Amino acid sequence: MPSYAAPTRDAQFILHHVLNAPKADIPGYSELEPEFTAAVLDEAGKIAAEVLAPLNPVGDAEGCTLENGVVRTPTGFKAAFDQVREGGWPGLDLPEEFGGQNMPYLLNTAVGEMFSAANQAFTMYQGLTHGAASAILAHGTDEQKAKYLPKMTSCEWTGTMNLTEPHCGTDLGLMRTKAEPQDDGSYAISGQKIFISAGEHDMADNIIHLVLAKIPGGPEGIKGVSLFIVPKFIVNEDGSLGDRNGVKCSKLEEKMGIHGNATCVMDYDGAKGWLLGEEHKGMRAMFTMMNEARIGVGMQGLAQADVAYQNALAYAKERLQGRAVTGDENPDGPADPLIVHPDIRRALMDQKSFVEGGRAFLLWGAKMIDQSHRGGDEAAEGMVSLLTPVIKGFLTDEGFDMTILAQQIYGGHGYIEETGMSQFARDARIAMIYEGANGVQALDLVGRKLAQDGGKHVMAFFDMVKDFCRENDGEAMTDFVVPLKSASKDLQAAGMFFMQHGMKNPNAALAGSYDFMHLFGHVCLGLMWAHMARAALAQLAAGDGDPAFYEAKLATARYYMARRLPATRTHLARIESGAEPVMGLDADQF
Amino acid sequence: MPSYAAPTRDAQFILHHVLNAPKADIPGYSELEPEFTAAVLDEAGKIAAEVLAPLNPVGDAEGCTLENGVVRTPTGFKAAFDQVREGGWPGLDLPEEFGGQNMPYLLNTAVGEMFSAANQAFTMYQGLTHGAASAILAHGTDEQKAKYLPKMTSCEWTGTMNLTEPHCGTDLGLMRTKAEPQDDGSYAISGQKIFISAGEHDMADNIIHLVLAKIPGGPEGIKGVSLFIVPKFIVNEDGSLGDRNGVKCSKLEEKMGIHGNATCVMDYDGAKGWLLGEEHKGMRAMFTMMNEARIGVGMQGLAQADVAYQNALAYAKERLQGRAVTGDENPDGPADPLIVHPDIRRALMDQKSFVEGGRAFLLWGAKMIDQSHRGGDEAAEGMVSLLTPVIKGFLTDEGFDMTILAQQIYGGHGYIEETGMSQFARDARIAMIYEGANGVQALDLVGRKLAQDGGKHVMAFFDMVKDFCRENDGEAMTDFVVPLKSASKDLQAAGMFFMQHGMKNPNAALAGSYDFMHLFGHVCLGLMWAHMARAALAQLAAGDGDPAFYEAKLATARYYMARRLPATRTHLARIESGAEPVMGLDADQF
Repeated sequence: MPSYAAPTRDAQFILHHVLNAPKADIPGYSELEPEFTAAVLDEAGKIAAEVLAPLNPVGDAEGCTLENGVVRTPTGFKAAFDQVREGGWPGLDLPEEFGGQNMPYLLNTAVGEMFSAANQAFTMYQGLTHGAASAILAHGTDEQKAKYLPKMTSCEWTGTMNLTEPHCGTDLGLMRTKAEPQDDGSYAISGQKIFISAGEHDMADNIIHLVLAKIPGGPEGIKGVSLFIVPKFIVNEDGSLGDRNGVKCSKLEEKMGIHGNATCVMDYDGAKGWLLGEEHKGMRAMFTMMNEARIGVGMQGLAQADVAYQNALAYAKERLQGRAVTGDENPDGPADPLIVHPDIRRALMDQKSFVEGGRAFLLWGAKMIDQSHRGGDEAAEGMVSLLTPVIKGFLTDEGFDMTILAQQIYGGHGYIEETGMSQFARDARIAMIYEGANGVQALDLVGRKLAQDGGKHVMAFFDMVKDFCRENDGEAMTDFVVPLKSASKDLQAAGMFFMQHGMKNPNAALAGSYDFMHLFGHVCLGLMWAHMARAALAQLAAGDGDPAFYEAKLATARYYMARRLPATRTHLARIESGAEPVMGLDADQF
Repeated sequence: MPSYAAPTRDAQFILHHVLNAPKADIPGYSELEPEFTAAVLDEAGKIAAEVLAPLNPVGDAEGCTLENGVVRTPTGFKAAFDQVREGGWPGLDLPEEFGGQNMPYLLNTAVGEMFSAANQAFTMYQGLTHGAASAILAHGTDEQKAKYLPKMTSCEWTGTMNLTEPHCGTDLGLMRTKAEPQDDGSYAISGQKIFISAGEHDMADNIIHLVLAKIPGGPEGIKGVSLFIVPKFIVNEDGSLGDRNGVKCSKLEEKMGIHGNATCVMDYDGAKGWLLGEEHKGMRAMFTMMNEARIGVGMQGLAQADVAYQNALAYAKERLQGRAVTGDENPDGPADPLIVHPDIRRALMDQKSFVEGGRAFLLWGAKMIDQSHRGGDEAAEGMVSLLTPVIKGFLTDEGFDMTILAQQIYGGHGYIEETGMSQFARDARIAMIYEGANGVQALDLVGRKLAQDGGKHVMAFFDMVKDFCRENDGEAMTDFVVPLKSASKDLQAAGMFFMQHGMKNPNAALAGSYDFMHLFGHVCLGLMWAHMARAALAQLAAGDGDPAFYEAKLATARYYMARRLPATRTHLARIESGAEPVMGLDADQF
C-alpha cells in the first residue's frame, strides 16, 4: 500500500523563510507564528497520513454506488468525515460568526494540500462545500447566510456546484435549465446537470446545491444565467429539515479516477430554489469564487505529484536492480538500489524540483488571495488574477506528468493497481479538466488576463522579477539569477509577439496560448526557486540548525535552473511560429 | 462508443511514395505492388474496425477472470480470435513451410498497427505468440520447429515470454527460477514468473511458454540464464496433446489498462521444459527477437495515439462550444464546433503530425528489419539496431502523451469511461514500461548503441540526413530542410557532449540519455516529415489525383517543423547541463 508523509517541514520553510508570513501586513497573519503553524500542520498531517491516506485505495477500489436514489460512499468514508468535522477542519478559514476559525486562506491551502494528497476523492466533498459556502458568503442575504452557513461551515451539510449540462461545459451560454419564478418568491428549477461532484451521498444530513439556470424571458446566452440555492431537503424557518426537494441523482458516472467521489447526473424537476445574488448575474457570482477554486485545483495537481513522488522515492531507495555505472554502491547486496542510476535521478529530480517549487508557487498565490481579500490590496488581486490560470493549468499539467514519471520508476509494478501508483495518475488526470479545462485557462490568460487593466499586472510581474534579480546580483545567487533572467526574457518576448501580431490576427496569440501558460509557469517556478535559494543561503549563513535541508534546497534549485527552465526556449519557438502552422489546414482536410 | 478507421490511405502513401517498397532490392518486396498492399490493408482494416474495435471497450469493462485455474477472456474474444486465425493473419510474415504467408515484416507491421489500434489487449495474444514463434524459428532444433511452429503460426496454440520475477525485471541476473537437468534430456523448471501476458486463457488448445531459468552450477548472474520451451500440455510424438504440465496461473493482476489481456503470475513446479538454443545463452536467444519486439511495442504507442486522435478529431468537428474569435463559422447553429479554436487545433495538429510522422518512422524501421533479415544488409541491421530504442521509447512516450491530449479535447466527457478516451490512455501507458522500460531504452541507446561498431551507425545516420539535405536544397524544400538541419545539429552537439564528457564520467552521458532519446526521436520524425514533404511535392507536380491529401501533408510537415522540432533545443540544453545537477544530492538528502 502506498504511504504518505505530510510535508510539514517544507511548508514551514516556505511560510516562514520564503513568504515571511507572520511579518506580512495582512489581517490575521500575525497569528501565523512558526510554532502555531507547525502545530496546525502537524495535526492536519496526522489526519492526512493516518486517517485519509489509508482510505484512498479503498475509495478507488470500491467507488460509490447508487441504488434506489441512495448513493453510498466507500467503506470508512463516513467515519473519516466525522473525524474531519470534529477537528473543525472544514471551517478553518471561514468566518467565526458561522462557526469557522477565521484562519488565513494561506494556512487553509497548506492544510488542503495535505488532505488532497492523502485522498483527493474524499477531500472533494469538503472542498465543494467550501466553494458553495464561499458563494453564499459573498452573495447571500443575511437570512440565507444564517440559514445555511453554520451547517456548511461544519460540513454537517455539504454543498455542490451545478454548472455543466450534457451539451455544454465550457460554453455555459447554451444552458437549458430553467428557473420559473413562483408566487412565494422562490423559483421552480427544472433541467439536467451532469458531472456534479458530491451531488448525492450518505455523509451529510443535507446537501445544498448551487445551480446555474435561466429565468425565462431574461437575456440570451451567458448574460441570462442566474444562480440558485437548491437544498436537497427544504430548510424550515426554525432550521429543521422539511420536505425532500424535487432533485435527485439519476446516475453515477464511471470515471478514470476519483472513484471515491460521487460524480452525479442530477435531475431537477420543479425543485424549489432561491436566487443567490442578483437575477441574470449568476456568472458573476460564480466568478468571484473562481480564483480560489482554480487555485484549489492547482493544489490538487501538486498534491498528487507529491504523494506519487514520495512513493517513487521510497521505491527507488529500496528496490535493488542493476549496478551503478561508477562502481557498486551496495557491494554486499545482490544489486544497487535504483536511485544510483542517473536516469532514475533525473526522474526523481524532475519530480522533487516541481513539487517543492510548485508548493512555493501555490502558497505564494494563496498569500496574494489573503492580501486581496483580507487586506484589500488591489495590486495583489490583480497579480493573483493574472497568475490563477497559470497556477491551475501549469500545476495540474505538470502534476499529472509527475505522477506518470513516478509510476514509471516502479516499472511493471507501477502498472498494477496494487501499488497505488496508477491511482495517483488517474486521480490527477481530472484536475487538468475540471474548473475550466487547461486550454480554457490558457485562453483566459492570453485572451483576458494579459491585457487586463491595460496590461499593468503582467508589467508588475516583470518588474518584480527584474527587481529581484537586481537585488540579488551577488555571486552566490548567480546560478539562480542568470537562468531566471533568461527565462523571463523568453516570457517577455512571447508577450511582445502577442502584442505585435495578436491585434491583426487574434489567432496568432491564441495559437500560442497553451505554450505561453507553460512558459509562464516555468518562469514562476524559476522565481520561486530563486527565492528559496536566497532563503536557504540566508539560513545557512545564519547557522540555522539544519544545513542538510538548505543544501538540498540549493542543489534542487540548481537542478530546476539547469534542467527545467530551458523549456522556455521551446515554448517561445512554438509561440513565435504564429498561427499559420496551427491553422494551416481546413477542418475537412484533417 | 469510440470508432476506428484503418489508415490505409496513409499507409499506402508511406509504403509507395515514401519507402518505394516494391522497388526496394529486398527479397519478397517485388510482390508489394500498390494494388496488392491495398487489398491486404483493406481486408485487415475491415477486421480491425468491424471485429476488433467493437470488442475493445468490452475487454476493458469485463477484463479476464481466474477461477479454479481457468482464465476466461472477455465476451466475444474467442470468436474474434477464430476469425483472425481463419484469415491467416497471425502467420502473415512467418515461413510458408510452417503454414505462414512469408510476407515482409513491413506489411505485417502495417497490419499490426491496425489490429493494435483497434484492440491492443486482444492483439497481444497473437503478438506474444509471434514473438515466441520467432524465437523457436531462430534457435529451435528442426524437431522443435516441426513440433511447435505449425500450430503457433496458425495461433491454434499461443505463446508467452517468461522473464520477470517478483524481485527482478530489468536486472534478470538476479533470477531464481531453476532448471534441473533430467535423465531424458528435459529439464524440471521451478520458480515463479510474474507479469506474464497471455499466460493463461481459454482461446487456444495449448500455450507454449518460453521461460528463462538458471541451470544449477552454471555461471553467476545473467551469463547463467538459459531459455526453455515449457508447453502447458506436453506435446506427444504424434503431435497430439498429452499430460498437463506442472505450470499454472496462480493469480491475475489488476492493472491500469489492457484489461482484456490476462496478465498472469505463473507458478512452475517441476514443469517439464526443453532447452531452446544453447545452455547459458538464454539472453542471447531473447535478444535476437528484441529489435522486432521493441519495434512492435513502439507500434502500439503509435496505434493508440492514432485511434485516440481519430476520436478526438471527430469530437472536435461535432461538439458545438463557443465561437471562433475571428467570427462565427457556424452562424446558424447555437455555437461553432470545437475545431475552430486555435488551441484545439494546436492539440489536433500535435497529434496528427505525430501519428503520421511516427507511422513513417515505424514503417521505415520495419523495412530495415527486412533489409537486414531478408536481405542480409549489415548497414541496415546496424541502423535499425541503433534506432530501435528510439522507436520504442519515443513512440510510446509520445504516443501516450497524445492519448492524453486527445482525451483532453473531450473535456469532462473524456474522463468518464463511456467515451472510451480513458481506455486509450490507460492501455497506451503500458507500452512505456514493458519490453524494457523507456529509461532502459535510453540507456541502451546511449550506453550501448551509440558506440556500437566504433560509432559507425550513428555516423551513417548523420550522413544520411546530410545527404538528404544536400539533395533537397531547392526552394520548395527550404521549409523542411532548414529546421531538419538545425535539429540534426542539436543531435550532433549532444553526441559530441557525450563523447567529450562520458569517458571521464559516464554519468555525464547517462544523465542525458532520456533527453537524447527524445532529441533523436524528433530528428527522426523531422527526417520522415521532410521525406513525406518531398514525396507530396513530387505527387503534386506529377498531377496525382488527390491534391488535397498532399497539400495536407505539406501543411502538417510545416507544423512539425515549426512546432515540434524546436523541442530539440530544450533537450540539448538539459543534456549539456551534464551530470552535476542530476547527481547533486546524496540519496539520503532526498
